[in-house]
Amino acid sequence: MHRVRVRIVEDALDANNTIARANRDDFDRHGVSVANLMGAPGAGKTALLERVLHDLGGVRAGVLEGDVQGSLDAERLASLHVPVTQLQTSVGFGGECHLDANMVRSALPSIPLEAIDLLVIENVGNLVCPAEFRVGEDARVMVAAVTEGEDKPLKYPLMFRACELVVLNKIDLLPYVDFDVERWAQGVQAVHPGVATLLMSARTGEGVTALRDWLAALPERRMVEA
Amino acid sequence: MHRVRVRIVEDALDANNTIARANRDDFDRHGVSVANLMGAPGAGKTALLERVLHDLGGVRAGVLEGDVQGSLDAERLASLHVPVTQLQTSVGFGGECHLDANMVRSALPSIPLEAIDLLVIENVGNLVCPAEFRVGEDARVMVAAVTEGEDKPLKYPLMFRACELVVLNKIDLLPYVDFDVERWAQGVQAVHPGVATLLMSARTGEGVTALRDWLAALPERRMVEA
Repeated sequence: MHRVRVRIVEDALDANNTIARANRDDFDRHGVSVANLMGAPGAGKTALLERVLHDLGGVRAGVLEGDVQGSLDAERLASLHVPVTQLQTSVGFGGECHLDANMVRSALPSIPLEAIDLLVIENVGNLVCPAEFRVGEDARVMVAAVTEGEDKPLKYPLMFRACELVVLNKIDLLPYVDFDVERWAQGVQAVHPGVATLLMSARTGEGVTALRDWLAALPERRMVEA
Repeated sequence: MHRVRVRIVEDALDANNTIARANRDDFDRHGVSVANLMGAPGAGKTALLERVLHDLGGVRAGVLEGDVQGSLDAERLASLHVPVTQLQTSVGFGGECHLDANMVRSALPSIPLEAIDLLVIENVGNLVCPAEFRVGEDARVMVAAVTEGEDKPLKYPLMFRACELVVLNKIDLLPYVDFDVERWAQGVQAVHPGVATLLMSARTGEGVTALRDWLAALPERRMVEA
């Protein structure tokens, strides 16, 4: 029973990877770099995008918004005047807790790939499953918040491992919560040695320039690697 | 393809409900009331338990700790001198993002049911899937935090619907975040009309008595309903 289940999960992940590669081919054909933005509900993913997307130094950005239901985040981003495509995971049954390659593939016709250089895919708020499903991205960015507690890297190691950049958001709240940045950083390095980290506050704007630079450099880094 | 998938999901939920009823029978036989505690990562589920479990007015409590990996929460609760059983969802593959009835069933032999009146099952931190899986509980309690933003009831409606009590935690941080309690409460009532809500802070202890009373009364309420 257990082995059968493991086999089914492995097959599903294999099928997902095949579709992710097809997505990647389409992104490549249009010269679009893709960042998969992950994090717990309320970590501040949308707030960070509101801060950085309007000024990426000539890099034309677009957003694919993944939500279980509704379009609140897409509405928030509309004022940035970047193309935003909404993807809902609740269609058909209870609601998926993550995006997978097939969902992203189904949204491709609605994304103006010819008009953008960078696509940010905002995943469903969740610290577990999004880490298991590649969607055809170049880089994965995870957003943690000081309000979630310093123990999260050790409790949800796969998520902290499955990314190229870890952003620690809401540092403006550090004086009001029990959160030891040093201990959190040790936890991050314990589960993902050498991963890049950025500290910031979407509320005050502190540290936001570093994330903007990182995202803006993604198309360039990608060309160097290719 | 889509219909097949819906069918598989429905079958899985049916099978889960059957096992949940078996769990419920075992709990009933021992006269144990069960609360399923759900919420996003970092909402403060463990911190609330640290506040309330040591003094439930004669009600003997036990905890079943659900985590993807590790036993950090169980270690935190050990000092309360209540029986704590650890359940890890990472065994076998990538890690489940929720508890299901079968996982809880596998843990039953390790829980001293004859020595407790109330079992609190702390679910995996996640605002989506835990709401879809009954585990044999009498009541479901969800913990939200002001740091997660006032939009969460509308973004994750199933979770706010699938509970008998909604706790809003971290109200000590209200002066430092943009969170309109009234608007949040309207969202909660929009997706789950009439549901009970409690405002509290595990950090300062404000409002904690109300949660303690609610949990302590669960065995009594259950007998009245039976």
